[in-house]
Amino acid sequence: MTSPSKSDLRPFFEPRSVAILGSLKKEGEAYTVIENLLRFGFTGRIYPVNPSYSEVLGLRAYPAVKDVNDPIDLAMVITPPATVPSLVEQCAHKGIKAVIVGTEGFAEVGEAGARLQQQLVDLAHRHGVRLVGPNTIGVVNTSNGLITNPYFVSYNRIIKGNIAYASQSGFVGAQGQPLEDRAYPISKMCDFGNKCDIDEADLLDYLLEDPETKAVSLHMEAIKNGRRFMAALRRLAAHKPVLIFKTARTAQGARASASHTGSLAGSASVYDAAFKQAGAIPVHTWQEYWELPRVFASQPLPRGNRLAIVTPTGGVGVVAADAAVEAGLAVAQLSPGTIDRLKSLHPNLSRNPVDLGPTMVLAEDPVFILEAATSAVLDDANVDCAAIALAAGIERWASAVLDMVSRLRQRLSKPVTIYVYGTQLSVSEEVVRQLGALGLPAYLELETAIKALGVALEYATIKAKLDPSPRSG
Amino acid sequence: MTSPSKSDLRPFFEPRSVAILGSLKKEGEAYTVIENLLRFGFTGRIYPVNPSYSEVLGLRAYPAVKDVNDPIDLAMVITPPATVPSLVEQCAHKGIKAVIVGTEGFAEVGEAGARLQQQLVDLAHRHGVRLVGPNTIGVVNTSNGLITNPYFVSYNRIIKGNIAYASQSGFVGAQGQPLEDRAYPISKMCDFGNKCDIDEADLLDYLLEDPETKAVSLHMEAIKNGRRFMAALRRLAAHKPVLIFKTARTAQGARASASHTGSLAGSASVYDAAFKQAGAIPVHTWQEYWELPRVFASQPLPRGNRLAIVTPTGGVGVVAADAAVEAGLAVAQLSPGTIDRLKSLHPNLSRNPVDLGPTMVLAEDPVFILEAATSAVLDDANVDCAAIALAAGIERWASAVLDMVSRLRQRLSKPVTIYVYGTQLSVSEEVVRQLGALGLPAYLELETAIKALGVALEYATIKAKLDPSPRSG
Repeated sequence: MTSPSKSDLRPFFEPRSVAILGSLKKEGEAYTVIENLLRFGFTGRIYPVNPSYSEVLGLRAYPAVKDVNDPIDLAMVITPPATVPSLVEQCAHKGIKAVIVGTEGFAEVGEAGARLQQQLVDLAHRHGVRLVGPNTIGVVNTSNGLITNPYFVSYNRIIKGNIAYASQSGFVGAQGQPLEDRAYPISKMCDFGNKCDIDEADLLDYLLEDPETKAVSLHMEAIKNGRRFMAALRRLAAHKPVLIFKTARTAQGARASASHTGSLAGSASVYDAAFKQAGAIPVHTWQEYWELPRVFASQPLPRGNRLAIVTPTGGVGVVAADAAVEAGLAVAQLSPGTIDRLKSLHPNLSRNPVDLGPTMVLAEDPVFILEAATSAVLDDANVDCAAIALAAGIERWASAVLDMVSRLRQRLSKPVTIYVYGTQLSVSEEVVRQLGALGLPAYLELETAIKALGVALEYATIKAKLDPSPRSG
Repeated sequence: MTSPSKSDLRPFFEPRSVAILGSLKKEGEAYTVIENLLRFGFTGRIYPVNPSYSEVLGLRAYPAVKDVNDPIDLAMVITPPATVPSLVEQCAHKGIKAVIVGTEGFAEVGEAGARLQQQLVDLAHRHGVRLVGPNTIGVVNTSNGLITNPYFVSYNRIIKGNIAYASQSGFVGAQGQPLEDRAYPISKMCDFGNKCDIDEADLLDYLLEDPETKAVSLHMEAIKNGRRFMAALRRLAAHKPVLIFKTARTAQGARASASHTGSLAGSASVYDAAFKQAGAIPVHTWQEYWELPRVFASQPLPRGNRLAIVTPTGGVGVVAADAAVEAGLAVAQLSPGTIDRLKSLHPNLSRNPVDLGPTMVLAEDPVFILEAATSAVLDDANVDCAAIALAAGIERWASAVLDMVSRLRQRLSKPVTIYVYGTQLSVSEEVVRQLGALGLPAYLELETAIKALGVALEYATIKAKLDPSPRSG
């Protein structure tokens, strides 16, 4: 097996041209890949390959990859299992170094499939071809519109951002997740599928040097080469936060994993300890996998654990304080100067959490109170970061609150997390998206919002320990 | 202090008539209470009380409660703090036995407020009046449209159901939560506020005999009379599941609590152990507080821990298996007959979790496959309950999947939990609402869906231990 090198993955994410091999009938797999590439605005050339078609979706189709005159960087093969090895061989002869095998029916279905998969691996290694898959929906790159998903996607847009999401399951793909509605700020995505060749270690090394990726969220069931993976993880974690959602944690989960990916998962407690030692941050639900990395998208890391909590309601302040302590944060002791500033808003505002409820109810301009109080605590030298609860999920408040936060954003030099709540779900969701567009991590669950800042603090600590070249800021 | 009795709380939830004392100017507190009562369709009589108005919102207003000729069951007082004692006294003279004091500015703001609150309590006890509050938004009863909320609510409908939600914070109220959009099936709601008189113990005793309440979710920061509360909890938990979200778990959370409710919260670990011993189920986030009780709304309790998992994607099966084990469930071993039924759908379907993905992709009618597989596992004598993952959050699938589940619903004799996912958030949310209307607990987070069945199993075990009169089924 060739050793990993960054250049090996570049054609998977940054191809100038892609060949798609598979069914070109309407809504066939290859047809759908091409349709998705067109809809998401892939900037490279697309070569449909199928001997029964001469044209599809306005593109010329080719009988075989050898019939394409131009060079091809990447092939997506999604044809019946038995046909895959010879098609990959044709790709190799054409000089294609990167092939995604979407097809299901390899190691995950039993012994015959496992033999076919091994045949594929041997062939690829012989020819110096790297493989993603089989049994995968492949990759996404929001910089060039690349998407190899062979399923119908109900939207046309994935938000370009700097978080890479990788997974061992196609469940994480654009066909299954509300990527647009949740506005996850995505740089790259990768579904490893059966990971017969390219695996997490390769991807981590690629992402280390990817300027468009600032944080990584990784779902994995099994690790095939633990030593190699841990080394890659340690390299990346020194520079970028890596969150790991390890599933198949239990014996029953591991058995379920073996039956759908053809890999054997290991004991989670062993992995979890190893992940932490390598500088990664374990997360424990899909929600955390998706939501927690937002905190890294465009904010500085906290310089300490002292949290200010600004809330329009006391009950939220209490839950936030509990969650903060459980996430490794501490409720900041406000300085006398800050308390004076708060008291000038209302005599009762003298402590953290800053419970603005009674003050806002009485105020002519409650949004002004919120802005003034938030500014006061963020200016406090005893405060490292802030959690702000916004009752913005209601039409009559949303735009005024967003305007305020937008002004506040200009002056933010400390990380914040925002909890959005309210009576109208669709408004809350839209506010979360708009705050995300301002570069602010916003959440519909209070505890997740707080945990995100805890994770940012955790990574600040890891980075201080691992990064050989610490920089200020 | 009078001992609790069910009859004391009846006028709070089942009043035939309500007097509202406070500002009747447009969008004033009392005005808004009345507007909410009208909008939510309160079935009793409403008496606005304010000496400066003769009419409001089409209702005759009265200078004082004594001027109302008819009997009044409940008063909501929301006037400046200093005026409250004399108004409560007027209520007492009018024969009103139940008063909600919405007003803020009592024990939660310091010593002067605490003295005023004590004055109020003494007066109420002298006159045999029971109080909810002060510093509260009061109550909701979906059976008679009662809502005493003094804040603007952006919707007109709370789904009538059989779960009672109680809290020590107004945060949980209709003005702050998407009760309609989330379609929580609600019987009663109560915000205890400073709970100077009526507290959780009173409510639990009332709910024990409330035929419209099948399960209770309780948020609390502090317990004022632990022995009395635990006794009430034990009485109720023997008959109905009680979930408790105890906040102010940490020293910092407890300090935050003291400053907004005027109560001192205690050590959470002590309470948590005591709750469990009394038969309650501790929950740990707002999301769990709201979502987990859904599992009790209209399903039988599981007779054992053996869970079948039906999923359109392998990765979800693995996470479900992990979460099941962590929630006290076990992945069921399917019987040979069930495996035969599954294999007739596709030869690869031979184990639990039942990963239908590859089969559904190839099927002419994927919804039929889902229905047949789900029926097969639910018919299995080795299966006590099922988790079903539905890729229904996409317009093109939603109605077909809902039709299928609706058919399946007719035959369900075992509890299920449903995880809904998909690419369109609004569609997923609508599917969750529609499944809820079919009496099925549905969730947007896989782990919460599984945890809900775990909580149902936990309660089945508690009930077997506590209920002096076990019934079959």
